[in-house]
Amino acid sequence: MRKRNALYVQSGGVTAVINATACGVIETARRHRTHIGKIFAGHNGILGVLNEELIDTGKESIAAIRALRHTPGGAFGSARYKLKGLEESKLEYQRLIEVFRAHDIGYFFYNGGNDSQDTAHKVSLLGRELGYPITCIGIPKTVDNDLPHTDTCPGFGSVAKYVATSIREAAFDVASMAETSTKVFILEVMGRHAGWIAAATGLASDTPGAAPHIILFPEITFDEDAFLAKVKATVAKHGHCVVAASEGLKNKSGAFLAESGGRDAFGHAQLGGVAPTLATLVKERLGLKYHWAVADYLQRSARHIASKTDVEQAYAVGKTAVERAVKGDNAIMVSIVRKSDKPYRWTIGTAPLAKVANVERKMPRNFITRDGYHITAACRRYLQPLIGGEDYPPFKDGLPSYVKLKKVAVTKRLAESFRGKP
Amino acid sequence: MRKRNALYVQSGGVTAVINATACGVIETARRHRTHIGKIFAGHNGILGVLNEELIDTGKESIAAIRALRHTPGGAFGSARYKLKGLEESKLEYQRLIEVFRAHDIGYFFYNGGNDSQDTAHKVSLLGRELGYPITCIGIPKTVDNDLPHTDTCPGFGSVAKYVATSIREAAFDVASMAETSTKVFILEVMGRHAGWIAAATGLASDTPGAAPHIILFPEITFDEDAFLAKVKATVAKHGHCVVAASEGLKNKSGAFLAESGGRDAFGHAQLGGVAPTLATLVKERLGLKYHWAVADYLQRSARHIASKTDVEQAYAVGKTAVERAVKGDNAIMVSIVRKSDKPYRWTIGTAPLAKVANVERKMPRNFITRDGYHITAACRRYLQPLIGGEDYPPFKDGLPSYVKLKKVAVTKRLAESFRGKP
Repeated sequence: MRKRNALYVQSGGVTAVINATACGVIETARRHRTHIGKIFAGHNGILGVLNEELIDTGKESIAAIRALRHTPGGAFGSARYKLKGLEESKLEYQRLIEVFRAHDIGYFFYNGGNDSQDTAHKVSLLGRELGYPITCIGIPKTVDNDLPHTDTCPGFGSVAKYVATSIREAAFDVASMAETSTKVFILEVMGRHAGWIAAATGLASDTPGAAPHIILFPEITFDEDAFLAKVKATVAKHGHCVVAASEGLKNKSGAFLAESGGRDAFGHAQLGGVAPTLATLVKERLGLKYHWAVADYLQRSARHIASKTDVEQAYAVGKTAVERAVKGDNAIMVSIVRKSDKPYRWTIGTAPLAKVANVERKMPRNFITRDGYHITAACRRYLQPLIGGEDYPPFKDGLPSYVKLKKVAVTKRLAESFRGKP
Repeated sequence: MRKRNALYVQSGGVTAVINATACGVIETARRHRTHIGKIFAGHNGILGVLNEELIDTGKESIAAIRALRHTPGGAFGSARYKLKGLEESKLEYQRLIEVFRAHDIGYFFYNGGNDSQDTAHKVSLLGRELGYPITCIGIPKTVDNDLPHTDTCPGFGSVAKYVATSIREAAFDVASMAETSTKVFILEVMGRHAGWIAAATGLASDTPGAAPHIILFPEITFDEDAFLAKVKATVAKHGHCVVAASEGLKNKSGAFLAESGGRDAFGHAQLGGVAPTLATLVKERLGLKYHWAVADYLQRSARHIASKTDVEQAYAVGKTAVERAVKGDNAIMVSIVRKSDKPYRWTIGTAPLAKVANVERKMPRNFITRDGYHITAACRRYLQPLIGGEDYPPFKDGLPSYVKLKKVAVTKRLAESFRGKP
């Protein structure tokens, strides 16, 4: 069997642990020298592949690759760049195969969300069609936790741990000051379409009365009066009220609350997030003192408080992707399979890319309480193990010590640069 | 010598380590039984004392008091409640002495910022005047780091570590996506009047080109054109730009940027923070894609990423306050004295309350670079040791395990409730 080169590409929004997957891929590929020659990475994701901008990971030291395991962000650069259908984006798919051919790439590992699994699938189809056999393995990654056929998505567990920890800590602060200061605190978290991250804040509420008292999900239409009544009742009962709000919260007409636009005469929809919008409501209609926070990128890059389970799964999907590829599997996504809830036991499985591509996994309605403001026991049972364990990065001079790679470019072999969109 | 009771009171905005000070006070007082009888705490700060709402810390277990060392917020409740001059707030000061007398309180430990040191000072004066001898010890606490006569204020080091860690992590995220996504990221941090916290983000920038690229201090008047030019140049050079902005940023007319009000026709000044205001500028005038985060209470409650140095100092000031009190010191604030920068060596000292009260410590101009957008080597030398070391809380089920006290009320002894303001 002839050795062929491998290409690893990061895609879409990065996470605290996507580099742990990169570490798993590269360390494992380095141990399979009979099958795999060089290990390349795409510079800034699939864009780099289209532009024949490849990085030679062989120039990185063992220690640097090891340090990826504890470094957030995307070490090789990622891209928000979606390839469409085979017909619509034909030039791009052909160019990918052209680049693969020029660099003798036999293994393509695409590490991303829904779109990436779809792209990996299409590449495998086109490779066959063009007579260029290529092993395509999708590796899941997304803080949104919305991929099907996997127990969870690497990246999600660490965001979940961050938001649950943060809301618990802020709630201790608010509770101690509520008598004379802030009565309502609102934390805005990510989740444009699904409430998985908002749900995770509910893990902090492990005793009666513990924050968050209210969770606002994108799945549940925002009802201003009901929300304000709930805030008022919570303050009456506990002296304060802590709210977790999903950025994807929508009003009755289906518009994003943060972009409802009624408040800013200049139409600066992006100025307000959901949290300040809700805070203004609380102030105007209840007259209560408030504070709000928007975690934004902090939540998905907080490697210092990553879930150990998440880090281990992120590494494992990378490792298994390579092992499956050299064993001859193709057109699959590696996945996480739950064996039991408590104690949490899991293993790595696979799902055909054809079944994963473009399918979105929604949060089950029975994960949200009937009143729409909290999580159920079933949800807690699902989420709890995903935040399990700590995996602190090394610190130097009081700060986490993260690696920056050398990113040595591979010499281009194609005469022409890509004439498509990028 | 007759045993007398002690009263410990938390004041003002709480921090990630004010309870470590409470732990230091209570554990140490429990070891001085020849001098100190019961150890009370004020429920919700000085308000609780005025209302004769005292907590008997003797009802808390050894383990619960120990757990205060790793629990954020104010375990006994804190208050934003300022006592004014002795004449203006005479009723209140007299009431304090009345409550002290009713509960045989001979030691008053007031844990707070500027106002609290002033109050502690006035109580000591009035006690003498009214023939009720009371030992008053001020214990520093404030994330603002604005108390004089101390190297730093417990609470600040942990916020500093949090903001520097967070901006470094977010910067790794932004750098990896900048090619196709966010080019400018803005993190808003606390600091209404002084830029100490904003300055601390600069610690993350320990190599050339490392984020934050721009720090906006309340000490430097915001110049829109200069700021935008700097953002543009940074994006041109590094592909992205990470900004730390102090909430106290002011424009040329001296108005807070977040409340400049020019953008919202309905006058909702609180809707926008500094970060979204700056982000809108970046979008409108440079056309660059942005993201922003507002850390708000998350930064001052993030016990999970507390500075070990800060925790140790917070405990030490509590411990020393008690030791000095039983030795006969009075009307002093315990302080932190720096012996050397590198290695950082410190000890606990004292300063007369009369000298501390109402004096604000400003950030020296030579801590900010000449262009006004970053910190100098002198600033770095001062700040660096304050974030040193990690001191993780215990975790349970994936989340930090914090203590909630029983807070058993002391039986009231005064016939009348307070007739003053509270």
